[in-house]
Amino acid sequence: MTSINLQSKFDMVHDHWKPRIIAELNGQQVKLSKVKGVFVWHDHANEDELFFIIKGTLFMEFRSHTIEVKEGEMILVPKGVEHRPVAREEVWMLLFEPASTKHTGDVQSSLTVDQFEKI
Amino acid sequence: MTSINLQSKFDMVHDHWKPRIIAELNGQQVKLSKVKGVFVWHDHANEDELFFIIKGTLFMEFRSHTIEVKEGEMILVPKGVEHRPVAREEVWMLLFEPASTKHTGDVQSSLTVDQFEKI
Repeated sequence: MTSINLQSKFDMVHDHWKPRIIAELNGQQVKLSKVKGVFVWHDHANEDELFFIIKGTLFMEFRSHTIEVKEGEMILVPKGVEHRPVAREEVWMLLFEPASTKHTGDVQSSLTVDQFEKI
Repeated sequence: MTSINLQSKFDMVHDHWKPRIIAELNGQQVKLSKVKGVFVWHDHANEDELFFIIKGTLFMEFRSHTIEVKEGEMILVPKGVEHRPVAREEVWMLLFEPASTKHTGDVQSSLTVDQFEKI
C-alpha cells in the first residue's frame, strides 16, 4: 500500500478527455482526467457517475439546464440521465464510477476511450 | 441535481470521527469527516475503503508500518487489512466505500457511529 498523490498523477496527463484509472475498489474505479472543450451527449444506462472538480469550472449540461460545478465541488449524474460535460478552460477532475462504466455510454465518438489506462 | 460544495459541507461539521454521507451512488457512499487524535484498530472484512485527504496529514497505521497521507493524497485500504487512522492535527477527509461498510468493522468503540447522518 502506498499513498496516491493527485498532483503527480495529473502531471502524467498531457491530453484531454482521456480518463486514467488511479484506484480500483469494490468493483468501482477512481479515474482522473483533464478536459477542455465540449464532450459528447451520452448517458450510462446502469451506472451513476460522480464528478469531483479539482481545478477549474465544469459546466455539466443536461437537456433542460446546465449546472456549473466549481473547484472543490462534486456533481452526481444518475444512471440514465443524458449529460454533456463542457469545459471553457481546462478542468482537472476525478470520476468515481463502476468499473463497468463505458466512457460515452452507447454512443461511439472520436473521443471515446474503450480501454482505460492505469497510472 | 445540484452541485455538492465540500467547503459548505465541512462547515456543517463540528466534531471529530463522525462521518456524514454527502453522496450515494451504485451502492457506494461518499462520506466526509473531520478527525483528530487516535482512532481504533479495526478492519472491514468485505469492503475496500478509500481515504482522500482534503486538509492536513493523516497517519494511516497498519500493524507493520505507517503511511503518511498528505493533503491531496489518497490511500486505499483493502478489505481485511487492519488499520488505525491517526491525526496529530485536525484532518479533513473524504471516504469512498460501500454503503454496507460498518464504521469500525466488528469492533465496538465509544467512537463507533452506527447510523451515518446525511448532510
